[in-house]
Amino acid sequence: MTTDADIAALDAADPLAGFRDAFDLPDGVIYLCGNSLGPPPRDVGERLTRVTADQWGAHLIRGWTEDDWIGLPRRVGDKIARLTGAAPGEVAIADSTSVNLFKLLAAASDLRPGRSTILSQADNFPTDLYIAQGLVGLSGDRLRLRTVPAGEIAAAIDEDTAVVMLSHVDYRTGALLDMAALSEAAHGAGALALWDIAHSAGALPVELNAAAADFAVGCGYKYLNGGPGAPAFLFVAKRHQEAARSPLSGWMGHAAPFDFAPDYRPAEGIGRFLCGTPVILAIAALEAGVDVALTADAQALRHKSQALGELFIARVEALCNDSGLALASPRSALLRGSQVCLTHPAGYPVMQVLIGRGVIGDFRAPDIMRFGFAPLYLRYTDIAEAARILAEVLATRAWDRPEYHRRAVVT
Amino acid sequence: MTTDADIAALDAADPLAGFRDAFDLPDGVIYLCGNSLGPPPRDVGERLTRVTADQWGAHLIRGWTEDDWIGLPRRVGDKIARLTGAAPGEVAIADSTSVNLFKLLAAASDLRPGRSTILSQADNFPTDLYIAQGLVGLSGDRLRLRTVPAGEIAAAIDEDTAVVMLSHVDYRTGALLDMAALSEAAHGAGALALWDIAHSAGALPVELNAAAADFAVGCGYKYLNGGPGAPAFLFVAKRHQEAARSPLSGWMGHAAPFDFAPDYRPAEGIGRFLCGTPVILAIAALEAGVDVALTADAQALRHKSQALGELFIARVEALCNDSGLALASPRSALLRGSQVCLTHPAGYPVMQVLIGRGVIGDFRAPDIMRFGFAPLYLRYTDIAEAARILAEVLATRAWDRPEYHRRAVVT
Repeated sequence: MTTDADIAALDAADPLAGFRDAFDLPDGVIYLCGNSLGPPPRDVGERLTRVTADQWGAHLIRGWTEDDWIGLPRRVGDKIARLTGAAPGEVAIADSTSVNLFKLLAAASDLRPGRSTILSQADNFPTDLYIAQGLVGLSGDRLRLRTVPAGEIAAAIDEDTAVVMLSHVDYRTGALLDMAALSEAAHGAGALALWDIAHSAGALPVELNAAAADFAVGCGYKYLNGGPGAPAFLFVAKRHQEAARSPLSGWMGHAAPFDFAPDYRPAEGIGRFLCGTPVILAIAALEAGVDVALTADAQALRHKSQALGELFIARVEALCNDSGLALASPRSALLRGSQVCLTHPAGYPVMQVLIGRGVIGDFRAPDIMRFGFAPLYLRYTDIAEAARILAEVLATRAWDRPEYHRRAVVT
Repeated sequence: MTTDADIAALDAADPLAGFRDAFDLPDGVIYLCGNSLGPPPRDVGERLTRVTADQWGAHLIRGWTEDDWIGLPRRVGDKIARLTGAAPGEVAIADSTSVNLFKLLAAASDLRPGRSTILSQADNFPTDLYIAQGLVGLSGDRLRLRTVPAGEIAAAIDEDTAVVMLSHVDYRTGALLDMAALSEAAHGAGALALWDIAHSAGALPVELNAAAADFAVGCGYKYLNGGPGAPAFLFVAKRHQEAARSPLSGWMGHAAPFDFAPDYRPAEGIGRFLCGTPVILAIAALEAGVDVALTADAQALRHKSQALGELFIARVEALCNDSGLALASPRSALLRGSQVCLTHPAGYPVMQVLIGRGVIGDFRAPDIMRFGFAPLYLRYTDIAEAARILAEVLATRAWDRPEYHRRAVVT
């Protein structure tokens, strides 16, 4: 087994070690929930003060031009494009992941008018399925949603499939889908591929164009560390931008919003997928997180993310024998995103005790403990210590007290 | 004519005078654009610091429960309910005005399945019409949008009208519609009334329930001073909450979002109209503005808003004779919202000169200069001074230089 000295050496040699200082993390906490909400970048407060006092307060309405607020959704979008293998002009910040998914799912299915099926993985993040259900409801009888287990997606694509809507990383297990292979399978059958990269963007290399993704949506508040409920982003491949239409045709997606013309005419390019007025304060906070991610090497992130996961699994397997734990994530690091999930019959109370001891992961019904490994700010020593505490909690049955069994709502 | 001493006396006797100190306004500026973007409340920076450092930074993911972020959209919604004549549980903060309009328009038209017409005023704010066009496009042939001049709305409501979608205050002229009379006309024909109160909430008394409004949407960044692109709000009357469904069925509108069930089941009450994860930082900023408005007396706001408008019109009429100006707003204060609009053939360059001299209004094509009178922070002396500067600009033809004719984009 890796010794404590080995682990200290890994941290000492970590090319990403310096990034920890870019975040404000509370003392005494090992934060393994960055896949749900990343911590604040150290300069986010200063940035918010700048936008609030120096822009909004000083320029008032003129901030839209003088501070180019109007360009902010595309400017930060271009930064996210660099993180996700997209080209400039293919990504914009807008709305929430759910709302963006609605726009792109509608646009994509309209591009395949003779086909009626939206195909998705049965274990997709629920809001993705709910949004598809909402669009199906609006469509009358035109569209239907079909879900199959992730492993059966490729075989289920047929001549009626309009859109294959998939999450790159399974939120519950961390299983990573092959974006290039599944996009190719969709295209081979004449369908389009729409990817939710909420659980991959910022934690592992995402290559939207190399993988021939048609559309994508993603989240600002997970590995991009944009703040609670940060605005989301959307990607539309250049080849679709002229034909694709957003059903949420708000004024910020208009070709000339300040002409105040009575009829909607979509903007050129990715701008047509904006809808209402962009949330400037929140996008400025998101930009702080994106700027940190931009300075990190993507391959180094992936390497460390995999190494952290491997270390955790190895430690847990060594320390938690016969404890009732099972690995819910794929065993191979190549098939995992940046999280490791363990099942335990008492998963919920175990996680409550861990949180009480400063190891913050989260729980997903029925029995899954999720541990997210954000490579930007976690140390190898954190992961070893988390495994040690988990083993201790299980060995002492510290979770076996009624107060740890009361459920609370945590996203 | 009112003398300078009279005007000073009006300020001295103004019961709302103290509210000016609740905002950060730059020196040397007379800000008549609060109908487009309100100024920052003085404590908004402190509140953002608190949420960023003391909540997000200290509690990380636990902020959703420990700081009750999950309840924030409804908590701030209840505050806006107090400003708009709604009951607790009838208002929530969510998304943008455009996105909320889409949800409520779809929900309202679904409640009238045998009817196909969305009826609106031809001069409605363009995004409202664009959103209706987007919904019509999604509906196949089920829905259509019909627009008529505002004065002909009541007569145009018929047995095919599903929803009457109206802006309470015309963004261009400031004309105020009679919410109670038009809602009654809609109901008399079996239709529903959906109101956009973006240009009235926070500036004049809005009585959604007394006027029997069915649905409403509104904006956080105008008279509520919530910051550029602040999140918007929506109102659904209690009587419709059980039957109305949002087509944007995201997880935050689910009855049990943290059960992660595969099928959408709408939450009870107003919560079903949430969609994605709420933008906590931006809602916290909005709350700062809402809290200021809550402490002001609504009747005093309306009285002062009308008095500011009357003073401006009287001064302009006295000082700007034969200058080419015409009043685009209703002459009677009873028929106006909180803005006065003047047309001038050189309206665009005149407004550029005014802005250069610190009188910030805005311009709407083809020839409208808009002056917004936010009663919370404007003084009577500001209004008199704005009129004096306008008269001087017109008398000296100061606008008649090429650099003032170049158009820039300003919301």
